[in-house]
Amino acid sequence: MQRSIATVSLSGTLPEKLEAIAAAGFDGVEIFENDLLTFGGSPREVRQLCADLGIAITLFQPFRDFEGCRRDRLARNLDRAERKFDLMQELGTDLVLVCSNVAADSLGDESILIDDLRLLAERAGARGLRVGYEALAWGRHVNTWQQVWSIVRQVDHSSLGVLLDSFHTLSIKGDPSGIAEIPGDKIFFVQMADAPVLAMDVLEWSRHFRCFPGQGEFDLAGFLVPIIRTGYTGPLSLEIFNDGFRAAPPRSNAADGLRSLLYLEEKTRERLASENAAKAIPDILFAPTPALELDGVEFLEFAVDDPLRADLTQWLTRLGFAKAGEHRSKKVSLLRQGSTNIVLNAEPYSFAHNFFDVHGPSLCAIALRVSDGATALERACQYGAQPYRGLVGPNEREIPAVRAPDGSLLYFVDPGMDGRSIYDTDFNLGEPAVQNGLNRVDHVAMALPSESLDSWVLYYKSLFNFKADDEVVLPDPYGLVKSRALRSPCGSVRLALNISENRNTAIARALSSYRGSGVHHVAFECDDIFTAVNRAKDAGVPLLEIPLNYYDDLAARYDFDDDYLSKLAYYNVLYDRDAQGGELFHVYTEPFAERFFFELLQRKNQYSGYGAANTPVRLAAMAQAHSHKSQPRF
Amino acid sequence: MQRSIATVSLSGTLPEKLEAIAAAGFDGVEIFENDLLTFGGSPREVRQLCADLGIAITLFQPFRDFEGCRRDRLARNLDRAERKFDLMQELGTDLVLVCSNVAADSLGDESILIDDLRLLAERAGARGLRVGYEALAWGRHVNTWQQVWSIVRQVDHSSLGVLLDSFHTLSIKGDPSGIAEIPGDKIFFVQMADAPVLAMDVLEWSRHFRCFPGQGEFDLAGFLVPIIRTGYTGPLSLEIFNDGFRAAPPRSNAADGLRSLLYLEEKTRERLASENAAKAIPDILFAPTPALELDGVEFLEFAVDDPLRADLTQWLTRLGFAKAGEHRSKKVSLLRQGSTNIVLNAEPYSFAHNFFDVHGPSLCAIALRVSDGATALERACQYGAQPYRGLVGPNEREIPAVRAPDGSLLYFVDPGMDGRSIYDTDFNLGEPAVQNGLNRVDHVAMALPSESLDSWVLYYKSLFNFKADDEVVLPDPYGLVKSRALRSPCGSVRLALNISENRNTAIARALSSYRGSGVHHVAFECDDIFTAVNRAKDAGVPLLEIPLNYYDDLAARYDFDDDYLSKLAYYNVLYDRDAQGGELFHVYTEPFAERFFFELLQRKNQYSGYGAANTPVRLAAMAQAHSHKSQPRF
Repeated sequence: MQRSIATVSLSGTLPEKLEAIAAAGFDGVEIFENDLLTFGGSPREVRQLCADLGIAITLFQPFRDFEGCRRDRLARNLDRAERKFDLMQELGTDLVLVCSNVAADSLGDESILIDDLRLLAERAGARGLRVGYEALAWGRHVNTWQQVWSIVRQVDHSSLGVLLDSFHTLSIKGDPSGIAEIPGDKIFFVQMADAPVLAMDVLEWSRHFRCFPGQGEFDLAGFLVPIIRTGYTGPLSLEIFNDGFRAAPPRSNAADGLRSLLYLEEKTRERLASENAAKAIPDILFAPTPALELDGVEFLEFAVDDPLRADLTQWLTRLGFAKAGEHRSKKVSLLRQGSTNIVLNAEPYSFAHNFFDVHGPSLCAIALRVSDGATALERACQYGAQPYRGLVGPNEREIPAVRAPDGSLLYFVDPGMDGRSIYDTDFNLGEPAVQNGLNRVDHVAMALPSESLDSWVLYYKSLFNFKADDEVVLPDPYGLVKSRALRSPCGSVRLALNISENRNTAIARALSSYRGSGVHHVAFECDDIFTAVNRAKDAGVPLLEIPLNYYDDLAARYDFDDDYLSKLAYYNVLYDRDAQGGELFHVYTEPFAERFFFELLQRKNQYSGYGAANTPVRLAAMAQAHSHKSQPRF
Repeated sequence: MQRSIATVSLSGTLPEKLEAIAAAGFDGVEIFENDLLTFGGSPREVRQLCADLGIAITLFQPFRDFEGCRRDRLARNLDRAERKFDLMQELGTDLVLVCSNVAADSLGDESILIDDLRLLAERAGARGLRVGYEALAWGRHVNTWQQVWSIVRQVDHSSLGVLLDSFHTLSIKGDPSGIAEIPGDKIFFVQMADAPVLAMDVLEWSRHFRCFPGQGEFDLAGFLVPIIRTGYTGPLSLEIFNDGFRAAPPRSNAADGLRSLLYLEEKTRERLASENAAKAIPDILFAPTPALELDGVEFLEFAVDDPLRADLTQWLTRLGFAKAGEHRSKKVSLLRQGSTNIVLNAEPYSFAHNFFDVHGPSLCAIALRVSDGATALERACQYGAQPYRGLVGPNEREIPAVRAPDGSLLYFVDPGMDGRSIYDTDFNLGEPAVQNGLNRVDHVAMALPSESLDSWVLYYKSLFNFKADDEVVLPDPYGLVKSRALRSPCGSVRLALNISENRNTAIARALSSYRGSGVHHVAFECDDIFTAVNRAKDAGVPLLEIPLNYYDDLAARYDFDDDYLSKLAYYNVLYDRDAQGGELFHVYTEPFAERFFFELLQRKNQYSGYGAANTPVRLAAMAQAHSHKSQPRF
């Protein structure tokens, strides 16, 4: 498809926006009037700039409050249109967006609307221009695509067509399925925006909280399917009003925008296939290599220096890991427990070194288990991920890898051809792996800069077909923390992504000074929480002290007997139960190296969350532990 | 009144919150359960901490989803209540907040609610405790104070009373006037929260956007008047759920909270007096010295070093100011035009020196013209402002002053006793003041750290009876800017307060590296914009270049003839018109010293705004000017 984006979706001056749009690989751009009238150059210069950058101007917008205006204003409004048509011709675009009138004194009589729009279409047609008519969800009289199509059909002029915007239909729970009945050539333009579902005024929601497809909760494939069915072949354009996007770096944001359109096209293709497997799918839709199922975390790699390597090794051995080997050619060591592998990289001239952070453990790579690494890499690159090729020593295996949004690596580890594991090829292995109660990496929790959360969500959704849970908002004593969990389709890989806009929260403090994102804890799953905690306590692992008041409240909420409650309290075990009877038992270690800690957890009866109800207790306990050691915050 | 605040209104650990509450001068505190169960000490320790700090525990809250619960849960809910009663007795508070049930499966039959609450009241009464019953605006069956009072009246138990919360009534446009009919001793507790009017889900609004009285848009005096009429003498307590407050420094925020209650009490007193001048006003309400009307800005004082003094002097003389004198004992110079005075303070060991900022002009004081400086100072101090006494040389006049929220000074200058002005007494004056077209300081625009806006608004409202305009949100090329204008009752002093949560906007860049707030422009009013701009141009003042595209759009929007438009464009004059036909003409200088600039403006036909519609044009023009001179932003 022709992929386009509106200038309002990005931050920066107009030239900065256009350069970012071209660099991301878009084919076209919608020019927002405000970006033009605040720009120091002429419309012709904008046209030239776009031509030089190789992007088409797909649309000029908006032209407001025209149809059904007070009769004494119609002539003046037509003059205004002619001035904007002049501008469009200088810009070199033939399409203008006319959005439905919102004025309180506008007229709703359909015959008047038809007459007005016919007049406008004739004026436009006389100059070889076209008008796309859009229903705003908050239009005074016209606010559905059905009304727009009814008017366009009756005007029946080649210069007037339907303009569709997913937000304006889905925000008011409109049904897009009937769009399939519109002739494709009467749809002049399609705008795509996603959004979180918010119970608020639709205009405010639209102006501040839209996001790229895949970052919100709308069924956009369901919106695009009937459009594709019409035979529409015009642009698919992103028109995103988002407060965060207005401040985000335009280049990386534009790249996310293109990725979101590709993701939407793939999802739409899947939907078309599932609805009618026999029917051919138009080849205008992006068709990447299918996503592979992941089979868990193969290893986690931390960037360390020698003191931190000693520190982490001590923590991990107390948690039941054993030193399993040293890398053949690099200053890298391996710790193992069962099938869980932790790599500590202290190699001074490696990529990992760029991640080394004096403030604590820094996750420089996650390795994902896949059936075929080359295939996984191929798909990631089709989605615009940056491949990485490291230095490979003699007889070491090259592992396909791409950069995550913070520059860290994602390795794709497959079984290989020769039956030898990557540890066999790359490490001098010592003892076989031990098993001391921790089964696997349950999840990795990251602290991200607040503006980057949507970018990470889209990255994992598109590259690996991850699912995202709803965002939860949790109180830290020094501000709010927002958390969104991602999981691979079968749940074998889980990430908890956390942000905070307040600078004194635990999440804000966990941000790496080097990369702007940081791991703050790793959770290991076990079969029996009491056995695992008992073992860890005996091995000298310091556990985070949970206030007795918490257990008093548990007693008021649940029917636990006093002995069991005492046991939970003795082991500092936090407890949660979901509506389906799933149960979570979890324990945190004290933080070390300023900000990093481990979690041990046991899930019962398909409990699938992360104990969000207990997070405020953990955050307060950590804040109190922290305040004993440091200066006052304010 | 007994003034109280809920722990949830402040950030920090429980001890940090309690210390801040005591330091601000509150009499009591509502303990939120979550703050207790995340606290490492016992309830008895909390009781002792409060006793040591001299604050009463006015309430424990919340107890949820009790009345009308599913019948099979009633016994268990009563057990839960008994456990919380134990806790309250350890805490040493006798009052618990029970909020109306929100559970979808809860029962709404009034007789069941009455039975349940009678049971609870009897249990509480048996232990000498009391229950305050509150209607949540989103309660499943009970969501108005009228329903609560009906139930409380019918239960008719001395341990059950009405609990009122302004948010839950005003958010759903409830009428508080009938509260006056409730016997005062049946109102157990009153919570006060203000909020901006937002079109969103009431629960979300309540949980994230409440603010202190005077910071929002609710008529809280109208809510408190009928409560006072009942004879209620219990606590007035702030229960503020606000995302910003959760991260704000608790001490200064608690101080704002107390100030907001005093302000509310004064406004309530005024309302009672206006409604019935004959009736006595209960003396429990705060009664400060009345606010004086301001008569404009007497002078603005900038902290400068020698190069900046030379720079500013050159700019101001080009704008028609003349050097009028040097201070008798300090390195301070005076520039005047008509009755407008600018003081440049380069004294190295003065308070001003603390404000000196290498990045540009820093406003260290605003002097306000009043009829009596001592009276103005008295009121400011009653509202908790910190008085300032500077060094006064021989024969110099001591000017009453207080600290503004950023530590800068507000002077109160009155005519004095001897007919000599402060300039006569403190300066060696040269020539008499000139008049070159600029009449007065129209407004001063400040850039503030985003979390401090509400604090500034409350400061000016309470100390000086300023009015605040609605907040406007404006796009800068690199993010959003929020602006709120304040004006003295007769409009003689105006401030435009601006914040931005995005670090690359002009507002964020205008923040002083020293004080966290900064002046970014000063606007002078003139009688004729073209004369004034022509004079400034001739004198070599560089004006901010406005794109021609802006004037093309003006032509489309207004009936200007081409000559007039050309004149506007030639002089870079921006234009705005309000709905009442008021008109604004305004021009900006180029920024200098990195971030500071001047504005010249002319208001016609009572135009009262600031040309917000043109702000995006100015911000984009400045961003483009800036980007020519500096490194890429991203």
